[in-house]
Amino acid sequence: MNDGSEMDLVIRGGTVVTASDTFRADVGIRDGRVALLAETITGARETLDAGGLMVLPGGVDAHCHLAQPPKGKVEYADDFESGTLSALAGGTTTVMPFALQLPDMSLRESVDDYHGKANGKAAIDYAFHLILNKTTPQILGQELPALIRDGYNSFKIFMTYDDFRLDDREILEILAVAGREGGLVMVHAENHHCIQWMSDELLAAGKKEPKYHATSRPMAVEREATHRAISLAEVAGVPVFLVHVSAREAAEQIAWARERDLPVYGETCPQYLCLSEEDLDRPGFEGAKFICSPPPRDAANPAALWRALQLGTLQLVSSDHSPTRFDDPKGKKVGGTDAPFTKVPNGIPGLETRLSLIWSEGVTAGRITANQFVDLTATAPAKMYGLTQKGRIAIGADADIVLWDPERRTTIKNEDQHHNMDYTPYEGFEVTGWPVTTLSRGEVVWQDGAITAEPGRGRFIVCDTPGPVVQAANRSG
Amino acid sequence: MNDGSEMDLVIRGGTVVTASDTFRADVGIRDGRVALLAETITGARETLDAGGLMVLPGGVDAHCHLAQPPKGKVEYADDFESGTLSALAGGTTTVMPFALQLPDMSLRESVDDYHGKANGKAAIDYAFHLILNKTTPQILGQELPALIRDGYNSFKIFMTYDDFRLDDREILEILAVAGREGGLVMVHAENHHCIQWMSDELLAAGKKEPKYHATSRPMAVEREATHRAISLAEVAGVPVFLVHVSAREAAEQIAWARERDLPVYGETCPQYLCLSEEDLDRPGFEGAKFICSPPPRDAANPAALWRALQLGTLQLVSSDHSPTRFDDPKGKKVGGTDAPFTKVPNGIPGLETRLSLIWSEGVTAGRITANQFVDLTATAPAKMYGLTQKGRIAIGADADIVLWDPERRTTIKNEDQHHNMDYTPYEGFEVTGWPVTTLSRGEVVWQDGAITAEPGRGRFIVCDTPGPVVQAANRSG
Amino acid sequence: MNDGSEMDLVIRGGTVVTASDTFRADVGIRDGRVALLAETITGARETLDAGGLMVLPGGVDAHCHLAQPPKGKVEYADDFESGTLSALAGGTTTVMPFALQLPDMSLRESVDDYHGKANGKAAIDYAFHLILNKTTPQILGQELPALIRDGYNSFKIFMTYDDFRLDDREILEILAVAGREGGLVMVHAENHHCIQWMSDELLAAGKKEPKYHATSRPMAVEREATHRAISLAEVAGVPVFLVHVSAREAAEQIAWARERDLPVYGETCPQYLCLSEEDLDRPGFEGAKFICSPPPRDAANPAALWRALQLGTLQLVSSDHSPTRFDDPKGKKVGGTDAPFTKVPNGIPGLETRLSLIWSEGVTAGRITANQFVDLTATAPAKMYGLTQKGRIAIGADADIVLWDPERRTTIKNEDQHHNMDYTPYEGFEVTGWPVTTLSRGEVVWQDGAITAEPGRGRFIVCDTPGPVVQAANRSG
Amino acid sequence: MNDGSEMDLVIRGGTVVTASDTFRADVGIRDGRVALLAETITGARETLDAGGLMVLPGGVDAHCHLAQPPKGKVEYADDFESGTLSALAGGTTTVMPFALQLPDMSLRESVDDYHGKANGKAAIDYAFHLILNKTTPQILGQELPALIRDGYNSFKIFMTYDDFRLDDREILEILAVAGREGGLVMVHAENHHCIQWMSDELLAAGKKEPKYHATSRPMAVEREATHRAISLAEVAGVPVFLVHVSAREAAEQIAWARERDLPVYGETCPQYLCLSEEDLDRPGFEGAKFICSPPPRDAANPAALWRALQLGTLQLVSSDHSPTRFDDPKGKKVGGTDAPFTKVPNGIPGLETRLSLIWSEGVTAGRITANQFVDLTATAPAKMYGLTQKGRIAIGADADIVLWDPERRTTIKNEDQHHNMDYTPYEGFEVTGWPVTTLSRGEVVWQDGAITAEPGRGRFIVCDTPGPVVQAANRSG
Repeated sequence: MNDGSEMDLVIRGGTVVTASDTFRADVGIRDGRVALLAETITGARETLDAGGLMVLPGGVDAHCHLAQPPKGKVEYADDFESGTLSALAGGTTTVMPFALQLPDMSLRESVDDYHGKANGKAAIDYAFHLILNKTTPQILGQELPALIRDGYNSFKIFMTYDDFRLDDREILEILAVAGREGGLVMVHAENHHCIQWMSDELLAAGKKEPKYHATSRPMAVEREATHRAISLAEVAGVPVFLVHVSAREAAEQIAWARERDLPVYGETCPQYLCLSEEDLDRPGFEGAKFICSPPPRDAANPAALWRALQLGTLQLVSSDHSPTRFDDPKGKKVGGTDAPFTKVPNGIPGLETRLSLIWSEGVTAGRITANQFVDLTATAPAKMYGLTQKGRIAIGADADIVLWDPERRTTIKNEDQHHNMDYTPYEGFEVTGWPVTTLSRGEVVWQDGAITAEPGRGRFIVCDTPGPVVQAANRSG
Repeated sequence: MNDGSEMDLVIRGGTVVTASDTFRADVGIRDGRVALLAETITGARETLDAGGLMVLPGGVDAHCHLAQPPKGKVEYADDFESGTLSALAGGTTTVMPFALQLPDMSLRESVDDYHGKANGKAAIDYAFHLILNKTTPQILGQELPALIRDGYNSFKIFMTYDDFRLDDREILEILAVAGREGGLVMVHAENHHCIQWMSDELLAAGKKEPKYHATSRPMAVEREATHRAISLAEVAGVPVFLVHVSAREAAEQIAWARERDLPVYGETCPQYLCLSEEDLDRPGFEGAKFICSPPPRDAANPAALWRALQLGTLQLVSSDHSPTRFDDPKGKKVGGTDAPFTKVPNGIPGLETRLSLIWSEGVTAGRITANQFVDLTATAPAKMYGLTQKGRIAIGADADIVLWDPERRTTIKNEDQHHNMDYTPYEGFEVTGWPVTTLSRGEVVWQDGAITAEPGRGRFIVCDTPGPVVQAANRSG
Repeated sequence: MNDGSEMDLVIRGGTVVTASDTFRADVGIRDGRVALLAETITGARETLDAGGLMVLPGGVDAHCHLAQPPKGKVEYADDFESGTLSALAGGTTTVMPFALQLPDMSLRESVDDYHGKANGKAAIDYAFHLILNKTTPQILGQELPALIRDGYNSFKIFMTYDDFRLDDREILEILAVAGREGGLVMVHAENHHCIQWMSDELLAAGKKEPKYHATSRPMAVEREATHRAISLAEVAGVPVFLVHVSAREAAEQIAWARERDLPVYGETCPQYLCLSEEDLDRPGFEGAKFICSPPPRDAANPAALWRALQLGTLQLVSSDHSPTRFDDPKGKKVGGTDAPFTKVPNGIPGLETRLSLIWSEGVTAGRITANQFVDLTATAPAKMYGLTQKGRIAIGADADIVLWDPERRTTIKNEDQHHNMDYTPYEGFEVTGWPVTTLSRGEVVWQDGAITAEPGRGRFIVCDTPGPVVQAANRSG
Repeated sequence: MNDGSEMDLVIRGGTVVTASDTFRADVGIRDGRVALLAETITGARETLDAGGLMVLPGGVDAHCHLAQPPKGKVEYADDFESGTLSALAGGTTTVMPFALQLPDMSLRESVDDYHGKANGKAAIDYAFHLILNKTTPQILGQELPALIRDGYNSFKIFMTYDDFRLDDREILEILAVAGREGGLVMVHAENHHCIQWMSDELLAAGKKEPKYHATSRPMAVEREATHRAISLAEVAGVPVFLVHVSAREAAEQIAWARERDLPVYGETCPQYLCLSEEDLDRPGFEGAKFICSPPPRDAANPAALWRALQLGTLQLVSSDHSPTRFDDPKGKKVGGTDAPFTKVPNGIPGLETRLSLIWSEGVTAGRITANQFVDLTATAPAKMYGLTQKGRIAIGADADIVLWDPERRTTIKNEDQHHNMDYTPYEGFEVTGWPVTTLSRGEVVWQDGAITAEPGRGRFIVCDTPGPVVQAANRSG
């Protein structure tokens, strides 16, 4: 028995699960941090009963899009308020959305602008990745290095999309800056010209339904760009991170690189583990609900991605939450339901469902251990991006914690979701494993199915040096 | 500040390192277990100052030979007393030696006999693997299942050595028992006939010096047996663990199997990471000091084994401590210094040097993180063999702890070692990283270069179900 | 126009196909050899009209069993007479059956005994492989080297079968003799103990029908032995040839070895390209007609074997003709139709159907060119075993020729076959491509569906040094 | 004995070597074609004594640059006259240079222009590849299909060089045309942006000597583009041919593709088998003599390329003859000897030395057979590009023949070469194997060290459909 009188809050009776260890312990929280771990803590002013529950680090979603201005007339449905509320309702306590490089602004101004969107709205803590969509000597020589030094040290680049894509030379130059300054480059790897050509061929043949979105970007398209991104990083001599790896053939390229001792890392997302290209072929325009890039793949693909997670080829699972509403003229239907697949906005939601889906298909299904779940969804993303206070239950770490019921069965319905979306691609999915209570820096923000957080309480996190420099796979489950 | 008055001992000021996390914390110990983790614990009856030190789980050496009757006139130099004292002086707090199936005894009697050798001698806790060198319906049908149910659930078999080796049929039958009863089969994989034939060819050509020990068992010999062991386990449908993997070609077979979704696991040892076949070619009979099986390999081999550790192809590092004295008629010189390599007893010591060597070549050299070091040397072996109280620093776990100085530079000398050997193969190696203090179940057993443990205080550990059933690689360093 | 008056026979109007080239030419034959190639040869005493036909080298079947005493009460149905007549009716002009090492005889006596079976019976030319099923210093030191020097320089060994199998030491010793003396070792690669164990498990579970023959020897069993055979050859430093490769996983091992620059070669057979394990599951005892070892594999396997042939991983296609009659107390029914699969004699016929099946499934189906067909079925086997006069159409080569109709469609029926068997596993197969006329040393031995050869006209061929020493893949189709 | 009175010429006493067979035969030639093959041909009007010599198909050099306008102020030294004379002196009887798409001309006009350069100059027969450096709907829709139908059906594209390179979209469109019309796309695979970036980095660091040419285009640069070219062809669903493969890592990509059943083909060149990047580091400006793209690689590379040739991963060997003179203001020294490596014209000569180098390093060194030599240097290139009358010794084939002395040792000196170059990169190389006499369509064009051909006698060859559609590797040497 241990005295908890100095604690603000004690979580009692739960089983703590870290990325490597599992143990019965009460958790004492003070000043928003984990201050005490002991078998029994008594005398606390406030307690949370975690009997029969697991005490996990809150999820870290290292890839999501909030309040991001998308292309043309489309609008992303979630801002920092709805997005972070949805996240915490799903057990996630840290999000890393993207500060997009805006036209007619410096990178710093773009970042400041993005801070403006988060301030007063975010309900949980957040850090920013940058999105770089153009390079100038000024950007590469001054703006980007300065931001890296300020803790904005991961930046995403695109090998496709007309308004975003960089050519190989620009990518090399960005990789070189990352190498010099200690940043980490995240790559959306799909071959732009292949997609364009395939799309034109399909449209010319009158093939415009949503399912042709998948046809227009086959695995080879992602595999090629993945190999190229790896090669560019090899030439520049720096690490590289592949975002939203969807195709087993792309994962094979990452495995190949890692065996050759190259510092190459990657993530996948629930949509590539739980959905398939057949979803894109649902009747009418329904398939549009599953249009994201890269697309879900064939039925044999998820098993290969799970193997890539088990073997450490891919290190983490993010949501790539991209909230494009379905029945909305600023969403999937921006071009009408007759629009060709090329005109349907990309992106599906997933901030809130990520943890339950991965637990259910991963831990409950016997593919990964609870420790590995913690690693994939919280610890590894926190290490990868230098979120030193997040992603773990350890003395001194932020008390970002989720009380997890590993047995609770739930049917996912959009009406129960807290995002600002009018659908979830997982409608009707039965999952086992559910976040009963979520704490952010020691505050209960989600309990008994109710959000108890005030928007605006979330704080910005200055990232430490990204992890991959010394990163390698752990061996034990 | 937290009240430590109920603690027996508090470790103050150190940095706790687990297999996944690193954090500043004081560690409270009560009744031999970790009872309290907090930033500051005050008021303890007894304290250990860990300022500037790392607080690691004590090492778990899952492969060592103590008090084991070797072949013929040879004697292993270390019994449970000298062996465990040497272990704790090196920061290791759990050993798993082998209960050898003895002639004219049942398996149970062999185990009981081995308990007799450990009782009253072991200074730290220990579990047993079995060594199976013959099979009968009685052994497979009754004796082995009964022992597995009693927690003796890992057993080593040999594909070589005249008195030990089993044929493929026997191996299949043992694998099948392991599958049915929940045991884990450990395989010494070298092709017996190849070694015999190569040795005969070499001796016929007058090539008998120690260096020909390596020539007589090339990588292909280990690789073949590794592939065969994997295949037998595949046919039997059960996991398999490859012990002392020395050759990169053998590690490649394990990686190939794992990519094919087979539950195949393996370890390597410091001698394969730090020594090479050139050591076997030292002048005169000196090379005999490096004769072990499989032998150290070529100069390019360690880099490949490190990569296998980084990628999770191999999950742990053990010592394979096999204490055969050098200048001793019951040791390496049993046949005189003119004896052909085939007559020189196999085996080199390493219980005490394992952690320092792996830290120095691994963490200091930048190949692995401190977390991965903990995983490879303590957490992973404990999980693999079901040592649920060992290998981690967590509430409720045994307080088997080492205070580690990551900066201390030491030159390894046999005169400083605590085994009963007259040499160490690492004589003169400079290492960085050293165990300052070792605790076993909360008792200080090694401090300031002095052993403070009483032989006999060590306890036998009943193993839980081995881990590989749900084992898979973690992803984050 | 060229004068053919000195020719014994001229083949007019055909298209000559060699392993690399295709060209319109008349072929002049004198003294049993190809003496003249020209666009038009006139004035010949005798002509054969090959208009619209291809002029191919007669097939070389480098793996068949004739007049071989099998195990126990079983008898192989074909002797040298029926076997060679069947061969030539299928377009094959050279056979290489096996001289089995007989008990109580020296190797030489066994060979002489086998000559006695061929003499006066063979209708086409033949060479012998040896089968070695035991080793003694006398055999390895004197008998085998002497036979190699006399042109018996390829020898098959078995890794399974109770009465045949050699252990790894014996295999190494035979490989070493082959290396010293210039022989080529052919290996039947399946793991004996695995098969025994699996069979015992199946029988104990009451699973005894023919289909369990396939279950009892899964791909892993062949793959393991293939890897082991390769490793033994690597240790011995000599080439090795894998016979009747059936499993894609075994072919992968050969590809792996070849990429590592090891001189490893292999063949497959029509049964592995055209049949599958489902044939073993035909109703009643019918499945026994497809029992051979290794067994046909799953439906995806043939495509992988075709790829192995296309890439040169496997170099030739043989029949492994093993004529065990079906409705015969000395054949498949030796143990009755209730006998467990382990008691059903192995082996299926195929000497006569080999070429048509491979042409039909290979050339007609667009998988290989006609040149590659010639290579796989005639040129490559002749080179592999040193049959310098066979397997090609070239000046000076034996006029072993088949006039091939590439368009002729035929339904295979056993009643049309010339072996002494009561079934063919290919009953009802429709094939495109057929031998219209066969010549052996310039004599027409098969024409218009009738055999015109006298038994006994076939001659023994003394083999030259086997080819693999300098063997490597050609590149062009 | 056979009557040769109707022959124009008979080659007597030689050993004919084809891509698959070797046999003693006299060769009768009439009307420029091989008309007769027989053991002995008597009564010929004219004879050539080939006693002790091999009779090979003349070499087909499927990649060389003649009379091609290079960039800027540089001039290629060889026109069709000097180039073809040099070729035949080296035993080559067919060349395939490149008709470059010229500015302000249609493709057809460019081809016609190139015909004008060949007419009246070429001393041996020739076909054209096209070089495409821009695409328009007109070119893709009309010009290219029309040319393919006229037998100009192979076209080279570049992934690098400012004035030549196409982007991935353009490559896809060309591949699609090739697929529809039956052409074959040849790709120069190097990543343009990588080379530019690396070059800029090197020059900025003051590294401008010739050796940095190799540094600026490491293996990863070629490997990446090779993977990309394969992927584009996979997406387009058509075969692709990789020219001048220099890096083992690029060859590995081709092997990977072929194992996946993709129709991918490639060639290497003598410079990648015989030279290394160390040659680029010769003192002073000497290294410029070895500047070609891709560059020669490290010392371990040639062994891997030889293995790729042995295994059929690469199917042929061409020269990539690119005659840039050394001590010439229109050659290597166009920018002076102080010019940075980026300003040194690429390209080295090799038309004349190709066969001797490959025979010497291949056949004499025991890496390939004489049949494989014929395949790699004559038969395979002829099949690949539809040169149905070339590349073989067969009835009806053009009598393009070289009498080869396999034993003759020669030291290569530029003074003995017949190109219009002032150096050869192989100066001082000792080779074994030499063309004693060369015949082109039955005419002796090279004998006893003297050219006996008149320029202008060479004829243009209309190509048949390229071979890869049904192409696969032969298996026998």
